[in-house]
Amino acid sequence: MYREAIKVLDCTIRDGGLINNHYFTDEFVRAVYRSLSEAGIDYIEMGYRSSRKYAPPDDFGAWKYCDDDKIRKVIDGIESDIKISIMVDAHRVADQEFAPVDQSPVDMIRAATYVKDIDKAIALINKVHDLGYETTVNVMAISAENEFDLIEALDQLAKCPTETVYIVDSYGYFFCEQIQHMVDIYKEHLPGKRIGIHCHNNQQLAFANTIEGIRFDCNLVDGSLYGIGRGAGNCALELLIAFLKNPKFSIEPILRVIQDYMIPMRDEIEWGYLIPYIITGTLNQHPRAAIAMRKTENKDKYAEFYNEIADLHD
Amino acid sequence: MYREAIKVLDCTIRDGGLINNHYFTDEFVRAVYRSLSEAGIDYIEMGYRSSRKYAPPDDFGAWKYCDDDKIRKVIDGIESDIKISIMVDAHRVADQEFAPVDQSPVDMIRAATYVKDIDKAIALINKVHDLGYETTVNVMAISAENEFDLIEALDQLAKCPTETVYIVDSYGYFFCEQIQHMVDIYKEHLPGKRIGIHCHNNQQLAFANTIEGIRFDCNLVDGSLYGIGRGAGNCALELLIAFLKNPKFSIEPILRVIQDYMIPMRDEIEWGYLIPYIITGTLNQHPRAAIAMRKTENKDKYAEFYNEIADLHD
Repeated sequence: MYREAIKVLDCTIRDGGLINNHYFTDEFVRAVYRSLSEAGIDYIEMGYRSSRKYAPPDDFGAWKYCDDDKIRKVIDGIESDIKISIMVDAHRVADQEFAPVDQSPVDMIRAATYVKDIDKAIALINKVHDLGYETTVNVMAISAENEFDLIEALDQLAKCPTETVYIVDSYGYFFCEQIQHMVDIYKEHLPGKRIGIHCHNNQQLAFANTIEGIRFDCNLVDGSLYGIGRGAGNCALELLIAFLKNPKFSIEPILRVIQDYMIPMRDEIEWGYLIPYIITGTLNQHPRAAIAMRKTENKDKYAEFYNEIADLHD
Repeated sequence: MYREAIKVLDCTIRDGGLINNHYFTDEFVRAVYRSLSEAGIDYIEMGYRSSRKYAPPDDFGAWKYCDDDKIRKVIDGIESDIKISIMVDAHRVADQEFAPVDQSPVDMIRAATYVKDIDKAIALINKVHDLGYETTVNVMAISAENEFDLIEALDQLAKCPTETVYIVDSYGYFFCEQIQHMVDIYKEHLPGKRIGIHCHNNQQLAFANTIEGIRFDCNLVDGSLYGIGRGAGNCALELLIAFLKNPKFSIEPILRVIQDYMIPMRDEIEWGYLIPYIITGTLNQHPRAAIAMRKTENKDKYAEFYNEIADLHD
């Protein structure tokens, strides 16, 4: 699938950081930055710019805040054309600072929001757009939203200056036909905007749904190395790059950083295809119950977990 | 997705047996048989009925041969409505014996064939159909076949007595749009036949492609417990059953046999999402080179393996 307009964003550091409270080493972040640059990936997301009021620094690593100085230091000396993205939770904006884009290493700011917080997302976008950043609005957990409310939110976003609005399948609930349905809604209500897609892998559908999005004109697509991300993780970047035939991409640096860093890391922190995430995914729920049970001695008691969750669902 | 015509076949013992030369214990086979029966699965495939001439008994376990007496013994005393399937390689038919269906525990015989061996598959089907068995023809590796040749083979199958012809993505090469294309070809050239689908998971698309097949009227669909199968494995049965809303299925016995048997087994024998299988899959190749490299000390040298395979591909 070659289409020049398709841009790829790697969210390894950001979504992966949700597993380890953003305590990645500088060595790892540099290795990922270098590899993605060599591979020709368009964007790398470094983490969140969170408020230290909402997220106390004793509890989190540097990539929870993504201070400009920290980013500058970690990329220092590596030749690269890759653009840098950071994410901001729209409902937790407080004391974060944003320099004008020409004084920052950051190129793009992504506002993560639920439908209920769409006005907060728009306020954030207005602010950072005026500072010169590229912007996206990532509307999370849309599989669990009332469609009328979702459409109302999209209609508001249509009038705000963001360039891109994301389909985010936070719960890993969608299958391919539903992606097509969502893209149709986004296209209708967001004329002229680019559509992005960010999928989770609860049902091993993150890659399938991402390419379904691509087929129906999503042009900003997220992946992560070896699919790292909270719970079942994301669309695997290696699958995406093997699929896209754009000659600007090179898969070898991606394979190398996976073998050198991601395989050993998978023995330390857990993500990917695990049965409890199927259960929350197919029930259209946040993975938090599955994440919690994976930390107990009953982490492989799937039938019991299913009964418990299905009962709650009644 | 509810459609009464959809039937599910579990190939855990058969395709899983390709990893361990069919040396599953009777205890394991009984546990799988019992669980699938409780879950309401339509068919269980026990293994191959191979010729002892081509497959010397010193090299393989019992499920390479699936003798009627062995099957009878392993299912003895378990109440069940599940039908039993066995597979036969069409190009390796020699001294195998087939009793009339009413004297055998087997209900269905599946002929596995390449396009070049289609006449052998038809000869086998004619023979076992006359003995009263349900039959399918599983046309393997069709992603690597010349489409003209494939269509000629399908036109021949249209005239033979098999009820079902399978789309088999042996190399894990297809993505969803290609499944739709294949189903269209099968429908056109196999009027009145049921279409089956058997996918491999090299690109994490086995489940996605299976439900794409279902969407376009495939009515006999294969899965395996925790996706067990050679190389990247198959469509995970648990995903399929969570997706299908047919009330005759129950997921709990499936979750239980996975937690009791498949999770420990995965520590002993290897299958599933592993980078070398992406590489052979996206290059439309048999996984044998990837299987071989996973048995060496360089099993995680993905970049080197990619360069080697891509060079051979030139």
